[in-house]
Amino acid sequence: MSQPVSSVVVCMAMEQEAAPLIERLGLQPQPPFAAPAPFVTHAGEYKGLQITVVTSGKDAATGVNNIGTAPAALGAYLALERLKPDLLLNAGTCGGFKAEGGAIGSVYVVSEFRNHDRRISIPGFAEYGVDARAARPAPALAAALGAATGAVSSGNSLDICPEDLAALQASHACCKDMEASGIAWAASFFPQTPLVAIKVVTDIVDGDKPSHEEFLENLATAAQSLQKTVPAALDFIAGKPLDAVFG
Amino acid sequence: MSQPVSSVVVCMAMEQEAAPLIERLGLQPQPPFAAPAPFVTHAGEYKGLQITVVTSGKDAATGVNNIGTAPAALGAYLALERLKPDLLLNAGTCGGFKAEGGAIGSVYVVSEFRNHDRRISIPGFAEYGVDARAARPAPALAAALGAATGAVSSGNSLDICPEDLAALQASHACCKDMEASGIAWAASFFPQTPLVAIKVVTDIVDGDKPSHEEFLENLATAAQSLQKTVPAALDFIAGKPLDAVFG
Repeated sequence: MSQPVSSVVVCMAMEQEAAPLIERLGLQPQPPFAAPAPFVTHAGEYKGLQITVVTSGKDAATGVNNIGTAPAALGAYLALERLKPDLLLNAGTCGGFKAEGGAIGSVYVVSEFRNHDRRISIPGFAEYGVDARAARPAPALAAALGAATGAVSSGNSLDICPEDLAALQASHACCKDMEASGIAWAASFFPQTPLVAIKVVTDIVDGDKPSHEEFLENLATAAQSLQKTVPAALDFIAGKPLDAVFG
Repeated sequence: MSQPVSSVVVCMAMEQEAAPLIERLGLQPQPPFAAPAPFVTHAGEYKGLQITVVTSGKDAATGVNNIGTAPAALGAYLALERLKPDLLLNAGTCGGFKAEGGAIGSVYVVSEFRNHDRRISIPGFAEYGVDARAARPAPALAAALGAATGAVSSGNSLDICPEDLAALQASHACCKDMEASGIAWAASFFPQTPLVAIKVVTDIVDGDKPSHEEFLENLATAAQSLQKTVPAALDFIAGKPLDAVFG
């Protein structure tokens, strides 16, 4: 198909990650697309692309954002099913790894999706637990963004226990996040809609500061970086057919 | 409302857990209710109840069942949205705890849903990670089944690392499983449809055998136990309005 991409859904877990981008693109709040699910959408047009940013909404009991793989999977599934975008973009913050060349502010275009906290020592289930899924390569996009490429590994904890760290290090993942694997799993049921994930490093997993301290210190900076990186990715995508996006 | 319950969706992760029950109730395979999602349904009538058993389907890459919280949350959400049952029943196997009085074959009606592998040390997010949700009490149902009541704590690993074990022990959870918290989270968006969870112990978490060995040894036995316990629960539910089910 040589038609240019016309619609992009951008999945982001946290409101704080998405707010500067929503403002920058001038997106407007939309009615819920999947009530009673908690997801929040903002939409608008940018350079001929219909953009919908889907955030995970807030947990009723605590008021915090619905982070983690289960809300991410549900949100991506419902967005793909109902909004039927040409392209799904997951953008967000992540932990990086000194040992893999990562630093605060590093930008990655994800080459592979994995899990590091699903240990199931039964043949077949062990591989299912990791659920390694290759991303569709997008080398020209990575080059346009000045981004590295590397694997993202997801887990439902912000901290890292020795078992998770061992799995992460063995996989040479460059990014540790809490959503991408759920999004990739959900997106696997919509093979006609490719998934691109872009991650910005807020904290160094194999550094000397606890993740939660560094994460909170750097969240605003990373959100500002996403505000530049995501529009740059959309600039690259605008006017191109899917095949050229993945050229 | 004094109308008796007319429809029950039974969510079970694994085909092997569900097969004896499907056979016992004479349920028939149904067309997919939520394609392209992978969930598999069998349905039929039992004592005036319209029963639909939803299993998580198989992973395309490995052929194993889609276990874990993300598929469980998506399956429960789509089942509640589309099949609109009066009652959601989650039935499955779990790990039990010697320290809490559990033994192989113990049956529990779940009193609380929790997570033990979502460590997020930021105020608000810490509670969100555990996501403790009280079940609607069903003491007469527990008595009719000869079941104990207790908390189930879910995680995406079959084994137990020291951090998970500490969280489980501190919470005095009686059951460790891999799906219930995802189902309870999804069900929270459908407050008009109560959730009952029934768990049968296949392995002892604080015992001396690795979970995966004990789990495989006892899976068939537990499935047989579910084949007796779930129909006994349906016998109790049949003809009763919701208020009496939770009497």
